[in-house]
Amino acid sequence: MQFVDWVAADWGTSNLRIWAIAPDGSAHPVAESGHGMSRLAPGEYAGVLNNTCSTLSRADGRPIEVVICGMAGARQGWLEAPYVEAPTPLGLLGAHAVRPPDAGPRLRPSILPGICIRRPGSEDVMRGEETQLLGLSALRPGFSGTVILPGTHSKWARMEGDSLAHFSTAMTGDLFHAMAGHTVLSLSLTSADKDTMTPEGIAAGLADGLESPHRLTAMLFRVRAASLLSGRDAAWCLGYLSGLLVGAEVGGHLDWIAGQDVVPVLGSPNLTPIYLQALALAGIAGEAVDGAGATIAGLKAAYSRERT
Amino acid sequence: MQFVDWVAADWGTSNLRIWAIAPDGSAHPVAESGHGMSRLAPGEYAGVLNNTCSTLSRADGRPIEVVICGMAGARQGWLEAPYVEAPTPLGLLGAHAVRPPDAGPRLRPSILPGICIRRPGSEDVMRGEETQLLGLSALRPGFSGTVILPGTHSKWARMEGDSLAHFSTAMTGDLFHAMAGHTVLSLSLTSADKDTMTPEGIAAGLADGLESPHRLTAMLFRVRAASLLSGRDAAWCLGYLSGLLVGAEVGGHLDWIAGQDVVPVLGSPNLTPIYLQALALAGIAGEAVDGAGATIAGLKAAYSRERT
Repeated sequence: MQFVDWVAADWGTSNLRIWAIAPDGSAHPVAESGHGMSRLAPGEYAGVLNNTCSTLSRADGRPIEVVICGMAGARQGWLEAPYVEAPTPLGLLGAHAVRPPDAGPRLRPSILPGICIRRPGSEDVMRGEETQLLGLSALRPGFSGTVILPGTHSKWARMEGDSLAHFSTAMTGDLFHAMAGHTVLSLSLTSADKDTMTPEGIAAGLADGLESPHRLTAMLFRVRAASLLSGRDAAWCLGYLSGLLVGAEVGGHLDWIAGQDVVPVLGSPNLTPIYLQALALAGIAGEAVDGAGATIAGLKAAYSRERT
Repeated sequence: MQFVDWVAADWGTSNLRIWAIAPDGSAHPVAESGHGMSRLAPGEYAGVLNNTCSTLSRADGRPIEVVICGMAGARQGWLEAPYVEAPTPLGLLGAHAVRPPDAGPRLRPSILPGICIRRPGSEDVMRGEETQLLGLSALRPGFSGTVILPGTHSKWARMEGDSLAHFSTAMTGDLFHAMAGHTVLSLSLTSADKDTMTPEGIAAGLADGLESPHRLTAMLFRVRAASLLSGRDAAWCLGYLSGLLVGAEVGGHLDWIAGQDVVPVLGSPNLTPIYLQALALAGIAGEAVDGAGATIAGLKAAYSRERT
């Protein structure tokens, strides 16, 4: 049995990550599993959470608070936590959390809401990233400016202190997998996997994407042409595709970061470097911020504000 | 038995279309089948062509010339017809045709080459469209300017009289199917098919794509957001996706058509209208040119120049 103060959970589309928060505030990984929203029916969440937390208890024997962010709060998730509309202070997230009624006697879960923009022409949604942004505002008190959160659906977020002023989603990761697997480009990418992207391919793609984001539909075909005409191998082509999409994403959002001293890139160790490289090519300083660390900091901030 | 002068064939990735050319020069459809390159091994082309032309013969009993354009000349096709490099006069296509040795005694096929650009940074390829462009130059003698050929891989071609000066491929159709079928957008498109796109969705997508082609990776997510937040149905979302991609294609190539009086759009009846609508929104006059008619005109021009 492990004594905890409370439990933090990042419950996304694909994965569930759980941390035990000790009475001294330190976070300890409990589990990381593939029990994401896409694999669960609503009635299965309570069982998964209770199983995952079966070895945890509080010293005082009271039920454990579990603060959850991510897709568990989507309409297709455990219990819908309706979107809060941006612009909004992120400190209010906890106040909009919902409590699933079927969690059992040992756990007291609350699911944080996502954030949306309803303004016509800018309609957008996020679930999970708002908690990372709350975490960033705790880790970097007073920071204002744009934050990039790379991913399957990258977010560009404009922070004003601890408020989220505006954001935009770029489908870069989703686009990458669809293009690589389900278009003519797949003919040039056989046998390539992420680990075999060449730095030369990535650099060429980044340069082209940054230069001509407005012509992305055309630049994409260069992957195929380079393979047919110049004998570029699959590892070069995959790197070029990845660089091109990230370059176009960054190149299309330069007005979001013009004049900013440092742009935080808040993501995973495998995605952040290519975004930092794109920013450097554009003459802008980027700074890697650990995504998991920001998630924990955000869940902590939501938990502490819920208690006060 | 049908007497012919020669036979024209458009042998693409998916389809084979054959026309009998009568001694008076008129073209008569013989067959349209799904025997495209993607379904044939190299050794199967001769049999398919002989079967398809089994009812045709020449009055003088001599072997029938068959002029073929398209993917039959690709490396994975019947016999590779190596790319001719742009810029190039299109009248030279016939001189670069290859003759498969395995056609049998009744038919004398020749396969026209594709065209490529090898200049680094502009590498590109086409196979089939060069013949349509040759046809356009026969149908519109003296035309110079940009031609749009919508498709799975749309071509933007700059013609200078009967020479192809430059071209660029936009993967718009391929991108459409990959995004609709293999990304999160598919969740908003269930039950929709091409016939159910709403004009409102198309118009909204065209406007957004034309306005912000540089932010395509971000605009694509609006399909999902519009469905989640505004309850847009699948038919609206599919129209928006289609309009957005075509709008971004046209919006990213405006410098190709600035100041041009009329832009020929050379394609199929189901794709041409949305391109004309995009051009109209951009304040540019477009003119529909029948794609099949241009293919026949191009094969005729290649045939007649081969004979002289």
